[in-house]
Amino acid sequence: MTKPTRRTPTGAAVLQPQITSAITEAVLDELAAQGYGRLSMEAVAKRAGVGKSALYRRWPSKQDMVIAVFSEFSVPLAEIPDTGSLRGDLVALLRAVHDWLTHPRLGTIVPDLTAEAARNPALAAAMRTTVGEPRRALGAIAFRRAVDRGELPADLDLELALDLVAAPLYWRLTVRRAPVEPNYLDQLVDPILRALNARPAHRADH
Amino acid sequence: MTKPTRRTPTGAAVLQPQITSAITEAVLDELAAQGYGRLSMEAVAKRAGVGKSALYRRWPSKQDMVIAVFSEFSVPLAEIPDTGSLRGDLVALLRAVHDWLTHPRLGTIVPDLTAEAARNPALAAAMRTTVGEPRRALGAIAFRRAVDRGELPADLDLELALDLVAAPLYWRLTVRRAPVEPNYLDQLVDPILRALNARPAHRADH
Repeated sequence: MTKPTRRTPTGAAVLQPQITSAITEAVLDELAAQGYGRLSMEAVAKRAGVGKSALYRRWPSKQDMVIAVFSEFSVPLAEIPDTGSLRGDLVALLRAVHDWLTHPRLGTIVPDLTAEAARNPALAAAMRTTVGEPRRALGAIAFRRAVDRGELPADLDLELALDLVAAPLYWRLTVRRAPVEPNYLDQLVDPILRALNARPAHRADH
Repeated sequence: MTKPTRRTPTGAAVLQPQITSAITEAVLDELAAQGYGRLSMEAVAKRAGVGKSALYRRWPSKQDMVIAVFSEFSVPLAEIPDTGSLRGDLVALLRAVHDWLTHPRLGTIVPDLTAEAARNPALAAAMRTTVGEPRRALGAIAFRRAVDRGELPADLDLELALDLVAAPLYWRLTVRRAPVEPNYLDQLVDPILRALNARPAHRADH
């Protein structure tokens, strides 16, 4: 306080992106190393090389910080391109879930946050609205395209379809921690297509 | 040591079942309340109303104690009767997984142990050999019966079949913590039967 520097006015604070990025990495590192319960704002700030105020300028609490970082990391990974067919989209969706769950640090962070959410309803609700629901909304786009193309029935159980993309991979990779052979994703495609009563796309223009 | 009592000879110590039972309950209570990381032998002994020596007479370590209790609780729940059809057995298997994951305390204990196993390879290996593999061996009996009855192809992907029984329920109940409607288990049966290429049982005696 003895050496004032030029500041932006209060209420219009500029958040420097490279600092946000350093904090994001530090949050993921601390989550992987300590888990949510033992993660402290002090340790994140120290690891990022910033003061604690840089954290509190961005998020009002540890929960808000962790959820924001986890969401910004996880939601974009659920976005897939339109491959033109349900089969292609399904492979892309499965690959996206696989890459999310096997991303460095995520193999520890995801089950840790899941366990924490089981004890902490507020965290569970925040994870649902900022991670689970946006990821499912992205996945739903692919299934709606398939319904429009006639590859899936109009009364598709969308909840089940979304569960079948994520659940077997989560169970095998994150819970069982069993090896996933290179062709495992391909082996999942046909059973899921059968489960959802998929049929080849019809041409609507004849 | 000043007042010796009659003892059974070393090496033939009698473990009183009611004490084992009290300890088992205390382990499950402490796991649910504290999680594996914070669980202490002291707290378990105090909650069970026994001395720590009663714990160490039974198990050499905290990990052995937790795994033994979790296994003895979890493995019998995976045993189902022969209902005479794949459909009936599948309903029973899904019900068994549902009842396991929704059992009081298990909704917290299972994700906590899963998160701990992600950080602790020795715990992960012990859970696999004493919980995961025995539970899967029990489930496999039902699928092998269905192959014998001709309801499933002889080249059934047994790993996938077992995953499809547990994964959607784990994902919905334990990870998403989404509501499971009363008819949800029934809604899973037909998609799983289709995924596994099930067909009606043939009579082999014609």
